Amino acid sequence: MSDMEKGIATIRHHLKDPDIISTDSEDLLAHGYSEWSSVNVETLPVAVAYPKDTEQVRTIARICHKWRIPIIPFSGGSSVEGHVSAPFGGISLDFTFMDKIVRVDEDDMDVVVQPGVCWSDLNRELERMGSGLFFPIDPAPIAKIGGMIGTNCSGTNAVRYGTMKDWVINLTIVLADGTLIKTRRRPRKCSAGYNLNGILVGSEGTLGIVTEATLKLAVRPQHYSVAVVPFNDLTCAVSAAADVIRSGVPVAALELMDEAQMRIVNDGGVTRPRVWQEVPTLFVKFSGTVASVEDNIDSVREIVRAYEPGEFEFAKDEKERELLWSARKESLYSLLAMRKDGNTDVAVPLSHLAEIVQASKEDAKRLDLNACIKGHIGDSNFHENITYDPSNPQEVENVKLAVKNMISRALEMDGTCTGEHGVGLGKKTALLSEVGNDTIMVMVSGDLCETNHDPTLAGAVSWPGHWQSISDEFCLLYQRLIKGALDPNWIMNPGKVFDR
Amino acid sequence: MSDMEKGIATIRHHLKDPDIISTDSEDLLAHGYSEWSSVNVETLPVAVAYPKDTEQVRTIARICHKWRIPIIPFSGGSSVEGHVSAPFGGISLDFTFMDKIVRVDEDDMDVVVQPGVCWSDLNRELERMGSGLFFPIDPAPIAKIGGMIGTNCSGTNAVRYGTMKDWVINLTIVLADGTLIKTRRRPRKCSAGYNLNGILVGSEGTLGIVTEATLKLAVRPQHYSVAVVPFNDLTCAVSAAADVIRSGVPVAALELMDEAQMRIVNDGGVTRPRVWQEVPTLFVKFSGTVASVEDNIDSVREIVRAYEPGEFEFAKDEKERELLWSARKESLYSLLAMRKDGNTDVAVPLSHLAEIVQASKEDAKRLDLNACIKGHIGDSNFHENITYDPSNPQEVENVKLAVKNMISRALEMDGTCTGEHGVGLGKKTALLSEVGNDTIMVMVSGDLCETNHDPTLAGAVSWPGHWQSISDEFCLLYQRLIKGALDPNWIMNPGKVFDR
Repeated sequence: MSDMEKGIATIRHHLKDPDIISTDSEDLLAHGYSEWSSVNVETLPVAVAYPKDTEQVRTIARICHKWRIPIIPFSGGSSVEGHVSAPFGGISLDFTFMDKIVRVDEDDMDVVVQPGVCWSDLNRELERMGSGLFFPIDPAPIAKIGGMIGTNCSGTNAVRYGTMKDWVINLTIVLADGTLIKTRRRPRKCSAGYNLNGILVGSEGTLGIVTEATLKLAVRPQHYSVAVVPFNDLTCAVSAAADVIRSGVPVAALELMDEAQMRIVNDGGVTRPRVWQEVPTLFVKFSGTVASVEDNIDSVREIVRAYEPGEFEFAKDEKERELLWSARKESLYSLLAMRKDGNTDVAVPLSHLAEIVQASKEDAKRLDLNACIKGHIGDSNFHENITYDPSNPQEVENVKLAVKNMISRALEMDGTCTGEHGVGLGKKTALLSEVGNDTIMVMVSGDLCETNHDPTLAGAVSWPGHWQSISDEFCLLYQRLIKGALDPNWIMNPGKVFDR
Repeated sequence: MSDMEKGIATIRHHLKDPDIISTDSEDLLAHGYSEWSSVNVETLPVAVAYPKDTEQVRTIARICHKWRIPIIPFSGGSSVEGHVSAPFGGISLDFTFMDKIVRVDEDDMDVVVQPGVCWSDLNRELERMGSGLFFPIDPAPIAKIGGMIGTNCSGTNAVRYGTMKDWVINLTIVLADGTLIKTRRRPRKCSAGYNLNGILVGSEGTLGIVTEATLKLAVRPQHYSVAVVPFNDLTCAVSAAADVIRSGVPVAALELMDEAQMRIVNDGGVTRPRVWQEVPTLFVKFSGTVASVEDNIDSVREIVRAYEPGEFEFAKDEKERELLWSARKESLYSLLAMRKDGNTDVAVPLSHLAEIVQASKEDAKRLDLNACIKGHIGDSNFHENITYDPSNPQEVENVKLAVKNMISRALEMDGTCTGEHGVGLGKKTALLSEVGNDTIMVMVSGDLCETNHDPTLAGAVSWPGHWQSISDEFCLLYQRLIKGALDPNWIMNPGKVFDR
């Protein structure tokens, strides 16, 4: 702790601005513990820094690099995987005061923003300007650009617009030692040099700190519509969704909520007077011209017919559209109101979707858990939310088991332990199972290994172990791969994604 | 050379298959010198290896790592930036015998391929199977998957479908020392761990060797159409294209050919009896359902009207569609028939498009060069092709100057020196200008720097130089960044993208 305190005193001294650093205990708690997160730790950050510009971030990074003080970037704070927690103390870097929309370029269809900008505020501003443009990545409404880049987030629009990585033109990054880089200039298409955006987006704050981002904007479609389609059973709903994707009909969103999730929405009462059927339901959003939306609605109605849905309701005007989408939109808040505590997020190849959703439901039932499923079914990505009593040890164990089983199942099906929330604190072991030791080593670092110098190379072809080498120096050189190279003192959001 | 020869003998010995390694002089020339390329070097590879599987590639890499022999991956050989040349000798790794479509999964809409598969052959096979799927990235018809991954290539479909990086699910990679990794499993959406696909795609063979790739497939649209729109001048054509993009009409391709390029097509005679107006012309491809295509054609016709185009011709059936697209399709071959020698590729933000195209034309005229412009105008990415006499030193100088001017202009406009061809041999200096020293260092390696240990950090805030450090060990640790970490002996396609 003494080094941390010295470091913080040095930051205060150099920044000459006492407001920038807080050690207020409520502030520490608000940054190190999160209601949103499915995982929390006992420790808290030692301080919260509120930088006002990139230069202040650089100064903080330089000093933290010297004193080996962890830096935990904090923007919206809506991570569900513990990204903002501070398992090794350190400084929570809160971007509340770096919340400027620096520039909107309507002609180039891009925007320069600071990490503290909330995506929904950005969209409100773009609408206020009458730009006809919008930023299409839509995670939780309070999520901010910095964290959205950190987790390569997505949301309901991903089936049409992709994920965060697809909308980043360039990033201004403060590296662990305070060096400032800009990954690219401003063309929308680029093949010049390594795609640093590609590796930084989704690196969960472990490689560098985003202090500015240039993002692509999309043209706001002329027209939207929404259809709501109830099904008799979950397998039918999921199979119908998979068929829609395979048909190539360009839906704008394709979301599933199971009967338990529909019940939660009804119980929450937010969408009253509308009461929903408590059956597995697909929510389909359409966008484009009036003609293409009509065309797409007809196609989807035709495709899902094979699965004998209930009434295929679609919005005839904006009011109906808002009403029909409201259940999907409010599901998050209905869950929050219930103080949900378990939430996991996996994605699988399309052909396994029905199977994994069904198996996960059955598993939850077998474990006597109160679980519901909802998801970005168009991306084969879905979430299981489990409400439970944290004071009941058996229930806690069962939740852990259900999450573990769901991840194992996703990996058996060649899927991933996280489609959009990231690895954070909770899925480090799952990541290792998912990609294997050698791939993790490229991400992080190679261990020192036994040297096995054999000039005739007789042993090389059957090379038994990992990272055994045919030359002595090899072993030393491979100690620092991507993470090790960019953050040698391991100060950038330590404890997330990988253990040291 | 002696080490190279020893290494090659060792490879022969270990692979126990004499056909795998060729040192035939014609073979060396065919791999080290390229008619396609705008840049070639004097040296040739010392050998060509034709591996038959991933294990053989691993053995070759291990031995090359030991003997520090350069490895130059070779698939289609259609690079225009010298990616296959061998400035330091070494082994050209030709994937002719790794050309299998390993698996097509229609339900999951993905395919597993080896690097020697040609994308147009893949599409023929998908059509033969009646899968209703296709691979949408369309560079030169002879390009193969390995090289397409290496350069993050694109083509006319990019405006609708994005670039190569958007279609890679996972990669099987042999690293410099022979370690085998698979970047990911098989979900289409993933936020688990660093996005190694993101950094490997576009790394031009300098970080690892692709031996297998899982690629997403797209649903083949029900219907296509093509419109051809001639304009009185280039600025009108480019401005009309920019307006189409800003309108959000989802065109499938939006290509420009200037009057000189149209003349080349006419002179080439491939599209006879059709003779084209020799004026700046937009080629627009539409895809979707019959209704949405009609809708889009109407929208585009309306948008371009402001620029007083000539006759807006659109295809009423498949035969007309083929005919109208033929000029764009054949432009490559018409140019090859002319033995073009200069070709450059830049991209800029949309608002600068008309200006840079016009300025580049004027510059070529001023330098008395025979240049034509064609491009993926929908991505603000275009090419200038210059035909010249290599035996005329003044003309050679002028070509170099025209290319240099065009790149400088693109960078002044916050654009890139390459939108799709990559950096290769010819654009290393341009890349440095484009992203700057510190960003290059993250890609490659930091130099040893003066240590400037100052415990009071008085000097840190005004930190004058690059990579000066606040702690001694920092300087040593930062020697090996991404390239240095993954390829410490600098054997992977050396001389491309960066100099050591």
